[in-house]
Amino acid sequence: MAEKHNHNDNKELQPLLVLGPPFMFPVFEAQNLHNYRFLNAFSSQLPLHQFLTEQNIEPSSIQAILCSPRQKVSADVIRLLPSLSLIMTTSNGTSHIDLAECSHRGIQVAPIPGDQLAVDIADMVVGLLIDVMWKISASDRHIRKWGSSKPCNLSSGSKLEGKRVGIIGLGRIGREVAKRLEAFGCKVMYNGRNEKPFVTYPFYSNVVELASNSDILVLSCSLNEQTRHIVNREVMLALGKEGIIVNIGRGALIDEKELVRCLMEGEIRGAGLDVFENEPNVPKELFPLDNVVLSPHAASLTSHRIYDVCERVVEHLQALFSSKLNSS
Amino acid sequence: MAEKHNHNDNKELQPLLVLGPPFMFPVFEAQNLHNYRFLNAFSSQLPLHQFLTEQNIEPSSIQAILCSPRQKVSADVIRLLPSLSLIMTTSNGTSHIDLAECSHRGIQVAPIPGDQLAVDIADMVVGLLIDVMWKISASDRHIRKWGSSKPCNLSSGSKLEGKRVGIIGLGRIGREVAKRLEAFGCKVMYNGRNEKPFVTYPFYSNVVELASNSDILVLSCSLNEQTRHIVNREVMLALGKEGIIVNIGRGALIDEKELVRCLMEGEIRGAGLDVFENEPNVPKELFPLDNVVLSPHAASLTSHRIYDVCERVVEHLQALFSSKLNSS
Repeated sequence: MAEKHNHNDNKELQPLLVLGPPFMFPVFEAQNLHNYRFLNAFSSQLPLHQFLTEQNIEPSSIQAILCSPRQKVSADVIRLLPSLSLIMTTSNGTSHIDLAECSHRGIQVAPIPGDQLAVDIADMVVGLLIDVMWKISASDRHIRKWGSSKPCNLSSGSKLEGKRVGIIGLGRIGREVAKRLEAFGCKVMYNGRNEKPFVTYPFYSNVVELASNSDILVLSCSLNEQTRHIVNREVMLALGKEGIIVNIGRGALIDEKELVRCLMEGEIRGAGLDVFENEPNVPKELFPLDNVVLSPHAASLTSHRIYDVCERVVEHLQALFSSKLNSS
Repeated sequence: MAEKHNHNDNKELQPLLVLGPPFMFPVFEAQNLHNYRFLNAFSSQLPLHQFLTEQNIEPSSIQAILCSPRQKVSADVIRLLPSLSLIMTTSNGTSHIDLAECSHRGIQVAPIPGDQLAVDIADMVVGLLIDVMWKISASDRHIRKWGSSKPCNLSSGSKLEGKRVGIIGLGRIGREVAKRLEAFGCKVMYNGRNEKPFVTYPFYSNVVELASNSDILVLSCSLNEQTRHIVNREVMLALGKEGIIVNIGRGALIDEKELVRCLMEGEIRGAGLDVFENEPNVPKELFPLDNVVLSPHAASLTSHRIYDVCERVVEHLQALFSSKLNSS
């Protein structure tokens, strides 16, 4: 996997040096694997010049950098690359880039905001979770339907304090979720491909074990063959009758048929779902249930924004490489 | 106000020493002003023995203490009160009370859980706020009504990061809300009767000024003649077209007619309402609006729990004073 991600083999493609990496990079890379040669320096522990030597890359072949606001692009980095003419950052701000050196060299700096999406999504996770716990949407529906003529007898809410939250996929979104839920007094633990260095939350390599030690499961990992149906019936039964699932990753991370069954039969307490297995279709069996919150709104919105960002990066690269082609 | 709260004048009533004070105390005091003589030591800066002297109270007249888990009841305090026979704390835990001294003296310690309600309500505030910002309930209604046959074109959400939150009433609930919203990257400011010592959030004595410097207003103060309609049309116009109001205090803190008008005319962006001016009635004009979340559920639930706690305190006091009466 790391090998595959480090570079693709088509050496005739224009190289793109990736530092950071930006939040939307997995989508961008998948879309453009055959259009650019990705030099994913972020996945290496080596200093940049050693990384390039190891990869057998001529520094003068690099014309463009893609980076996130978390990655400093210093004058030293810029001076390593004599042909650099474009730095794209997925942020509004550019203070992580040495602008004086760029200006001196005539390098274009292009801010393409997009990295803040993780923060949006993390807010959404907490919103969905509290909504499920307190039945906010269900109460709202009840009032609009019945006014005060019929008392709202939904079961009582419960506070987040002391709840154990298992996060599947502790990437940028997962970490933002963890930060927020800690302020509510939750205990965070996580599952992922590997245990992360510098992370103090307990790591569970086994999802069933994570579920049986959690009150709440948050799905914020990407979808691949390892994570498809990572939450199956066994995981849901391990989570238990008081358990809540929030999915803002991808629909197919959960076995949706089993999820519907567990929600209908009370095998789990509730779910907040922003994604579905066969979007835009939402399973109709969920419509009468009060223990689920359905919100395909934000996810579609967010993917839409991610695709926007990817498209703008491509536009910049195309403009760069076509002008070079013309001027050469 | 402070004067009035310090004690009531009917010296024939049984005294109740209040340390802390518990979260539900304003309700309890209002209900029982004519049943007990409240000795509100928490509102004084003096050490207990000086407070009693100043109030002209004979320490041996005190048989009962009501306290919250934030107030240490030390052996020294207990030794000051030779007739003490009951300590009620609005918490599960009793570690703030010197149990050895109580046991030695045969003093009954009664835990009456209730102080955690502020934490519940603070979670609810954040849930309502994110719901309004991301239109979670509105999206959920849309999907249940239309399925995937009609795309959900609700306006896009926005993250909490960087938003300025004005809290009206920085009591226990307000502080719990502030703690949570800081983890989302919000900037907290507040209004209240007085600027609070040891609080670093900016204080605004004027509510209009607070509103014009806020993106979000949270109402968590108690209702009295000073706070009735504290949010009127002028305050809402100062908050502005992007502003959001969350009210979990009491309905009459807002001029509800004006609120309905502002929501219908887009003078503010939205509202999350857990309380209403004429409960259980909810203004029908709000039912078709997507920029409001209606949730009388938690508030009624919570008040219900508060009344429960008050009732249990009264039961304990009645048992105490009637047994003393019988044995004397």
